[in-house]
Amino acid sequence: MADFVWPIRVYYEDTDSGGVVYHANYLHFMERARTEWLRDLGFEQDQLNQQYNCIFAVHSMQLNFRCPARFNDEIVVITTVSKVSGASFEFDQKIVRNDELLCDATVKIACLDATRFRAKSIPSFILTEIQGEC
Amino acid sequence: MADFVWPIRVYYEDTDSGGVVYHANYLHFMERARTEWLRDLGFEQDQLNQQYNCIFAVHSMQLNFRCPARFNDEIVVITTVSKVSGASFEFDQKIVRNDELLCDATVKIACLDATRFRAKSIPSFILTEIQGEC
Amino acid sequence: MADFVWPIRVYYEDTDSGGVVYHANYLHFMERARTEWLRDLGFEQDQLNQQYNCIFAVHSMQLNFRCPARFNDEIVVITTVSKVSGASFEFDQKIVRNDELLCDATVKIACLDATRFRAKSIPSFILTEIQGEC
Amino acid sequence: MADFVWPIRVYYEDTDSGGVVYHANYLHFMERARTEWLRDLGFEQDQLNQQYNCIFAVHSMQLNFRCPARFNDEIVVITTVSKVSGASFEFDQKIVRNDELLCDATVKIACLDATRFRAKSIPSFILTEIQGEC
Repeated sequence: MADFVWPIRVYYEDTDSGGVVYHANYLHFMERARTEWLRDLGFEQDQLNQQYNCIFAVHSMQLNFRCPARFNDEIVVITTVSKVSGASFEFDQKIVRNDELLCDATVKIACLDATRFRAKSIPSFILTEIQGEC
Repeated sequence: MADFVWPIRVYYEDTDSGGVVYHANYLHFMERARTEWLRDLGFEQDQLNQQYNCIFAVHSMQLNFRCPARFNDEIVVITTVSKVSGASFEFDQKIVRNDELLCDATVKIACLDATRFRAKSIPSFILTEIQGEC
Repeated sequence: MADFVWPIRVYYEDTDSGGVVYHANYLHFMERARTEWLRDLGFEQDQLNQQYNCIFAVHSMQLNFRCPARFNDEIVVITTVSKVSGASFEFDQKIVRNDELLCDATVKIACLDATRFRAKSIPSFILTEIQGEC
Repeated sequence: MADFVWPIRVYYEDTDSGGVVYHANYLHFMERARTEWLRDLGFEQDQLNQQYNCIFAVHSMQLNFRCPARFNDEIVVITTVSKVSGASFEFDQKIVRNDELLCDATVKIACLDATRFRAKSIPSFILTEIQGEC
């Protein structure tokens, strides 16, 4: 159950006129981290789509916004797989600045047929790798 | 417990290369609907900020993505207040296309001091109006 | 050479921590207006893509940011076709708040094959309608 | 006249249902590069705002979209200062993938009073550094 750590810099595009990161943009940061986690395991999502007609889509998520990030902050997304089944898996994700927790989430990802957006089994060679992380 | 209904058109900006609305953008749609709900009650958030130094921020949310919206879709956000306390309130929000449920969420909103981002009481004249909706 | 007028409300998602609309988001507003202009002429871009394999993409643009829009502003995008050729056309677009010019742009749109992203002729029944606007 | 090179990875958030990067998002990439260019010169924009009440805002830009970037692409933004005056400066920016030019732009940046959004002189210690790059 290794943590995957991905650093992100906050730019103007990420903020809103409240002076802080716009709440929906934390979801961008978490997705970047999941993409890099998958890449780190050896999987490129464009190839998975083209070769296996499978995409990984967010099925559901629970989010807590605890403290705002601001323009120019260097933040870190910490990603851990917490559960795996045959057609979905779950992440715990935390966004932190130094030692301060800004946002945390539980994110359930489903494997979908890329054409019909219906649930399908995670290809076994990927499932094996994900289970190894859990 | 009246439903507030806000129609939204899906544009290219809202979609991603999966061919569907990017998951974080449903949060934009829900926030537009909450903004219009508040306006409909008679409150403009820029004035609340300037006159009462208060902003309404998302504290936490639970989201289920059930079926994707696509470019050019006409969708509707249905917003209902489900709980109110002195410093926060909760919405049920559903995004539908015709009679099909695309996404639903429970969203907890906290009243914050706009300068320090600390919890503060909802001004009483607003609280009264919100309680009337619940 | 009729003006097409499309109203837009500025939400938190559109702003940045400078307190104003993030510069790239004016491009969203202009594209919404061009989409609605095309719809008003009777053309739905999802159908043009499916039936004629054609999409309209931005080829080039010149933009002047004159005065910032802010959260909660009601602004208007004024769109006029200024030039048409067989495979592209040009718009003048202005974003105004009351009588104040906030942003203006010249936008060249190319008709592309949706699969290969190569220039192709505008289908003649669309070209006729666009020329009628010019 | 040194080139400043900033690499960027394309994520789902950057794309649209045409299967390519949404045109307005190239402006995000260019702004990230300008922010990092300024940081590389030794200037943090949050400090410039707090200490000198100055922000750098896009005054105008000319953009050519030549070839689309796609999900998962590794692209590079190449930034060069081409002109400097007392209250503004101009960049040439190119976005490339390997040796292929995807998008190029001329971007004029104005120094503004952060409160009133009026033009003001670039602080001289910054101007000196920028002129050294030109």
